[in-house]
Amino acid sequence: MFEARLVNATILKKILDAVKDLLNEGTFDCSDSGIQLQAMDNSHVSLVSLTLRSDSFDKFRCDRNLSMGMNLGTMAKILKCANNDDTVTIKAQDNADTVTFMFESQNHEKVSDYEMKLMNLDQEHLGIPDTDYSCVVRMPSMEFARICRDLAQFSESIVICCTKEGIKLSASGDLGSANVKLAQTSNVDKEEEAVIIEMQEQVTLTFACRYLNAFTKATPLCNQVQLSMSADVPLVVEYRISDLGHIRYYLAPKIEEDES
Amino acid sequence: MFEARLVNATILKKILDAVKDLLNEGTFDCSDSGIQLQAMDNSHVSLVSLTLRSDSFDKFRCDRNLSMGMNLGTMAKILKCANNDDTVTIKAQDNADTVTFMFESQNHEKVSDYEMKLMNLDQEHLGIPDTDYSCVVRMPSMEFARICRDLAQFSESIVICCTKEGIKLSASGDLGSANVKLAQTSNVDKEEEAVIIEMQEQVTLTFACRYLNAFTKATPLCNQVQLSMSADVPLVVEYRISDLGHIRYYLAPKIEEDES
Amino acid sequence: MFEARLVNATILKKILDAVKDLLNEGTFDCSDSGIQLQAMDNSHVSLVSLTLRSDSFDKFRCDRNLSMGMNLGTMAKILKCANNDDTVTIKAQDNADTVTFMFESQNHEKVSDYEMKLMNLDQEHLGIPDTDYSCVVRMPSMEFARICRDLAQFSESIVICCTKEGIKLSASGDLGSANVKLAQTSNVDKEEEAVIIEMQEQVTLTFACRYLNAFTKATPLCNQVQLSMSADVPLVVEYRISDLGHIRYYLAPKIEEDES
Repeated sequence: MFEARLVNATILKKILDAVKDLLNEGTFDCSDSGIQLQAMDNSHVSLVSLTLRSDSFDKFRCDRNLSMGMNLGTMAKILKCANNDDTVTIKAQDNADTVTFMFESQNHEKVSDYEMKLMNLDQEHLGIPDTDYSCVVRMPSMEFARICRDLAQFSESIVICCTKEGIKLSASGDLGSANVKLAQTSNVDKEEEAVIIEMQEQVTLTFACRYLNAFTKATPLCNQVQLSMSADVPLVVEYRISDLGHIRYYLAPKIEEDES
Repeated sequence: MFEARLVNATILKKILDAVKDLLNEGTFDCSDSGIQLQAMDNSHVSLVSLTLRSDSFDKFRCDRNLSMGMNLGTMAKILKCANNDDTVTIKAQDNADTVTFMFESQNHEKVSDYEMKLMNLDQEHLGIPDTDYSCVVRMPSMEFARICRDLAQFSESIVICCTKEGIKLSASGDLGSANVKLAQTSNVDKEEEAVIIEMQEQVTLTFACRYLNAFTKATPLCNQVQLSMSADVPLVVEYRISDLGHIRYYLAPKIEEDES
Repeated sequence: MFEARLVNATILKKILDAVKDLLNEGTFDCSDSGIQLQAMDNSHVSLVSLTLRSDSFDKFRCDRNLSMGMNLGTMAKILKCANNDDTVTIKAQDNADTVTFMFESQNHEKVSDYEMKLMNLDQEHLGIPDTDYSCVVRMPSMEFARICRDLAQFSESIVICCTKEGIKLSASGDLGSANVKLAQTSNVDKEEEAVIIEMQEQVTLTFACRYLNAFTKATPLCNQVQLSMSADVPLVVEYRISDLGHIRYYLAPKIEEDES
């Protein structure tokens, strides 16, 4: 028997919005410690890794480890049927081939349940090695999303250059060239609006806009985003999910460095 | 001479929005007692019946009974030209082949008139027999619209099951199965938010989503919707139009009962 | 060296929105006195004339007269990257083949620069003769935009008839006929909501809806629009741009007068 409850459906809707464009389907691995989803995106370029800790659910019971392959498009459709202030419960029997989403309104007068078939998906568990990154940047997630969207107008690639002073994102193409510089915040009054840089070594890396833009679908989950970068290893774009866990996106840098 | 005036154009706009997707055209029958529109939808499956009482208009004059065939798409376009707080007057001469819509702004400094050709439409007056329904359910119209929209994702049909305890709407298809249960409201504080069931006999009936969803275009007209059901007779979905009248939609249940 | 700065990017965005549908490209003529853009629209029917005075910029320097041919679609894309409260600076070297747009956030922690290639465009400077117009009408720009949009549903042409009492706009086609009358405002309390007519002689002129609707893209620039009309000469539709200048659209009347 598996059962996980959240008193507020909003966060689960936002999580689905953050992954459903990248992944058509995915396997949720459930255990005592929580729920894990790890998968390469549909075009096998970037990696999505979602972790939700069991102790932050309003109720969590997982008698036996369970791997539930789900169509994320269908799951997103089902979650759209929940009101934001509904309580949502995910339920599955051991060895079952279906999962049930139950939504209860606050006054308990509306109860909906949606049953979805599970899928058998190939699982490739990729070990992600611990890395000491040359640069770790935290910045407002809305700002990052805005810049990725703006620069995507100019090129398929964004060059990210990180120094002690700040971070510069650049794109250059037929329409012209664009540079956006964010200075490290000098006085951190409001942490969620700050740009904070922890740097061992300066890096300049090039990434595909398309994936960066897909990652920013997670923006509603967290006010801040964290970018971890080192030469020749994948960028990590991380959004915390309040006290529930986090979602991390990994994307290898492009080889041809068209630095500006 | 026919003349009917409403000090607020909003309600007429909402009425048109409630019928224009189902009906390309329709005949407005005008008499001393008011305005009536009755017509089968474009695909001849459901029936729309609109009644507006003369005594609730701000001015109403109808010297001779008049049947005005109108293109409802054009009428909707014309009504879109009215501001919500405009006074609207519908005017026609006896035996005329045009109708005029006049909109006046509150400060009387803007006056618009739109003249539209009338059409000769075949009229089939369907007698609707008085029926004692097994179940009559009143519920918030927004809730009903939401459920019909949600369930339409799962199937072309919705099964409505009504018991003393509440109403259950279900849909089942390739994506999975969905059940939404609304309990009868125990303490009716706000009547417009309540679910109220008057039941002689339990019913379980299947309806085409498509039409239910079309009926919910009337949602802005009224906070509550009333569903009247009996086995083997058409469902009636009724929206009151403040003190002006009502709009009723009739839809026969599907024969093949795929009850869940 | 050319440099022009505005502390608020909004106005420049609105100016681009007001011209980019009519003009794919245009030449900005810069001199000591300010910036001028004059061009026939893409289909060579109407004329757009934009004037921005140097003394209303927050900084303005123009060492030598400069004609910068720009792709207005690209320029609009670049300006979309500015936040509304960013300071925007337009910069170009003498004889340069690029122009740079620099956006600075209010806290100076975000600085973006966008460089765009300039174009060599044929320039046709049309002298616009001073005219004493038979009728000059000022009216709320939103009202004018609304009427043009409404009437466009009925015909490709709008007939504007201006008398001492007011202005009447009409359109007539297959769907029906429409007349919108605005009376001259009797008591001008709020100048921006008033309809004010200065008339030497009554005029009735016919114009293509399509262009009038394109002109109303300038509506966000100014609460009032001014229409200047005389028989057989182009209509002038003028929007003031706060204290910075104005944008004027010129459109010749249609010959076949289908007056209503």
